[in-house]
Formats: sequence, structure tokens, C-alpha cells
Amino acid sequence: MTQQHDIAGGAAQSGRYTPTDRSRIRRNHKRAVYDRATIHAIVDATPLCHIGYVIDGQPFVTPTFHWRDGDTLYWHGSSASRMLKAQKGGIPVCVTVTHFDGLVLARTAFDHTANFRTAILYGKAQAITGSAEKNAALHDMMDLYFPGRMAQLRENTAKELKATSVIRMEIEDAVAKVRNGPPGDDEDGLSNKDVWAGVLPRTETWGTPEPDEHLSSNIPVPVYPRFR
Amino acid sequence: MTQQHDIAGGAAQSGRYTPTDRSRIRRNHKRAVYDRATIHAIVDATPLCHIGYVIDGQPFVTPTFHWRDGDTLYWHGSSASRMLKAQKGGIPVCVTVTHFDGLVLARTAFDHTANFRTAILYGKAQAITGSAEKNAALHDMMDLYFPGRMAQLRENTAKELKATSVIRMEIEDAVAKVRNGPPGDDEDGLSNKDVWAGVLPRTETWGTPEPDEHLSSNIPVPVYPRFR
Repeated sequence: MTQQHDIAGGAAQSGRYTPTDRSRIRRNHKRAVYDRATIHAIVDATPLCHIGYVIDGQPFVTPTFHWRDGDTLYWHGSSASRMLKAQKGGIPVCVTVTHFDGLVLARTAFDHTANFRTAILYGKAQAITGSAEKNAALHDMMDLYFPGRMAQLRENTAKELKATSVIRMEIEDAVAKVRNGPPGDDEDGLSNKDVWAGVLPRTETWGTPEPDEHLSSNIPVPVYPRFR
Repeated sequence: MTQQHDIAGGAAQSGRYTPTDRSRIRRNHKRAVYDRATIHAIVDATPLCHIGYVIDGQPFVTPTFHWRDGDTLYWHGSSASRMLKAQKGGIPVCVTVTHFDGLVLARTAFDHTANFRTAILYGKAQAITGSAEKNAALHDMMDLYFPGRMAQLRENTAKELKATSVIRMEIEDAVAKVRNGPPGDDEDGLSNKDVWAGVLPRTETWGTPEPDEHLSSNIPVPVYPRFR
């Protein structure tokens, strides 16, 4: 783990992920992007990801929060979690981060589509076992999500660290798919002059902070750049 | 397929899904809900889901759009899609729908959490093979997403139907996990009087419709109840 996190203001990473059989997009390949900067920007723009993994042949998809340092993705949870127990030993996972940006209404049903940005990352999950390393990763998460906040909180206890699993995954290969813009009707579609066509944009926003009822009135709402 | 869709105004389905080994929540089981009405409401509140499936032991998680009729979930895409090709033959899938409702900031790092609603559905994917059945399912999708719109568009062509795969999945078992409300600090946490605590709410909203540039100015923006 480095002290310079690129999502916290350091230099963006360059280069691209090398497409493999699992990450290469075959269809609509013009929408596929293997560029690190594009993929990382999609990953970092929300804390929410969906993690796919397999237990005894059964696929599971679990929503969770992630953070990233270079080509390493992290997530955490309860040590009692079935997902994290299964992931401790280096099993293959697929982590998908999606921003749904709008519905695209065309003049034929067939040409309806969506505007979206999605990043799909492949690698192997691996538990961070040492207590100090685990605590360092959890500090990183707090520092990335809420800069300055950890200094206002007491240190994690040994009991809390024991109750928490932290998983890391080296991003082995990854791809982004991006679609934006208006509908792409061809001549056949455009001949229908009577139906509305365009984009119904979808946006995720942060609402007005809701202070806890036990809070003293003299504590101002903190400003966390990622969550404004 | 019935003509009465419960998401289009028909009666909500009652009862609960029977938890199985894969859907039973072990940890934080107070947050687990097996109730059909709750699960269906989460599923229907967004078109976006994440579908998990396995090819040769490798998990994949693909974002896509779904629609639901009772206990049957549907999705569709290009017949050339690797996902849909793999899913034709009845493989097990896991479909997850998540609404991220906010970050919950507590007075210890450990008690930080999120407000969310997530539904996790299990079943087997199966392709709809007949062209007429496929077309009926695609009409259902349009009717559920954009009531009245299909009547303004030309019929799907044989070529378009051939190029489209439609998958259906009977929901065999399912679970929802829901967390809402303020942070749950205990006495230890509450003793820290100096840090802000509360909820940073996250909301998905529909923005102002963006008319296509080729649109005549006399066509009003349609009103689709689900996408206002």
C-alpha cells in the first residue's frame, strides 16, 4: 500500500489493461475501453460495487463498498460474512461498478437503449491477515472516503479488527463499457415523425445531510469532497 | 405470461419466499426480509440489475435491464451476447438489485455503515425460443416501462427478433436486505461529542428529458409513471 493514492489527488495511472478472453468485449466493441484512467474514474465515482463469486457452482452477487489504491481494489465487512469467508482463500471474483445515466428512447423499440458507464474488474480475492495491515487498510478507506475524519475518532480496537475482514484484489484485467448521447435511429426510425425521442437522464446525487439526534448543534457538517 | 402485471397496477403478490441455504441471511438476520411485496418493490423501483453467472468456473457480473411479471424475471439483449448465449441452457444465476440510500457516519469507524435496499434473486436462466413468445415478452417490457409507447412505434421485425435474446427466470428463492435510519452508536461512541454524525443521503432521480435533435417541436414529452 502506498501513501500516495491516486484517487486522493495523486497522479492518475496511465496505460491500459490487456484484454483477455474474459474481459474482451466482442459485441459493440466500439464501446469497450481498456484504458486505466477511464476505468479507474468509473470505479472511484461511487463507493458501491457488485461482487460476483462462486460457492459450490452457485453464483452470488453481493453489493458492497470498495476503495482503490492503484491497481488494487479493497472491500471489507464482518468476519462472519459468508462472502468474505469464501473469498479469503484466493477465489476468482468479478467486481462490477455501474453508473446508470439515462434511458434512451428511439423511434423503434429495437433501438431503445441506455446511457451508462460500467467497469468490470477481474482478479482473485485475498484476505489481509495481519492485524496491523488490516488496520492500515481500514485507515486508508476512511482517509479516502472522509479525509480528516479518522483523526476525530478513536482508534479501532483489537476486537473490532478481529470482527472485520478486509479483502484485497489485484486487478488482473478490466474493461469499461460506456454509452452516452442521443438515440441512434437510422433512416427507418427517423421516418416516424410522431413519437417523442430523446434521453431521460438518470442522476445520483447527495441529499441534504441529516444530523444524528444526539449531535450538539455547534458541530458543523463536514465537507467530504467525494460525497458532496 | 399474464395480461395483469402487478407492477403495472394489479394486486401485489402476497406470501414470502422460503429461505434456502443460499438465500438465508445468517449475519444481521434482522435486516433480512423474505416477504414478496418488499422484494418485488425493490426490484421494480429501478430498471437496473446486476446478473451473476458462471462460465467455466469464472464468475461474471453484468449490469442489465430487467422486468418482472409475478415471480418471473425477464431480461434481454443481443443474440450475440456472451452472457445470453451462456444463459440459454438453464444455468443458475443470481440477480441483484440495489438502491444505495446513503452513507451513515457514526462516532467510531467500526459503526459506519450505509443505508440501502437490496434484493437478491436466485433461479435458472432460460431462453424464450419462440418468435411470437419473444415478441410478446418484448411488448410486455415496453408496456411496463413506457405505457402506450409501443402503439406509437412500428412492430418489431423478424430480423430484430432474431437478433434479440430474451431470458426468463422463475424466482426460486429470494431475500431482501434493508438498512435505514441514523447511526447506531452505543455508549462508547456517544461519549465522543466532538464529531459530526448522521446520514449523507444518496438519491437517484430522473433529470429533465433531453429531446432528440431531429424531433419536431410540437411533440410533447410523454409521461411514463415509473420514470418521472
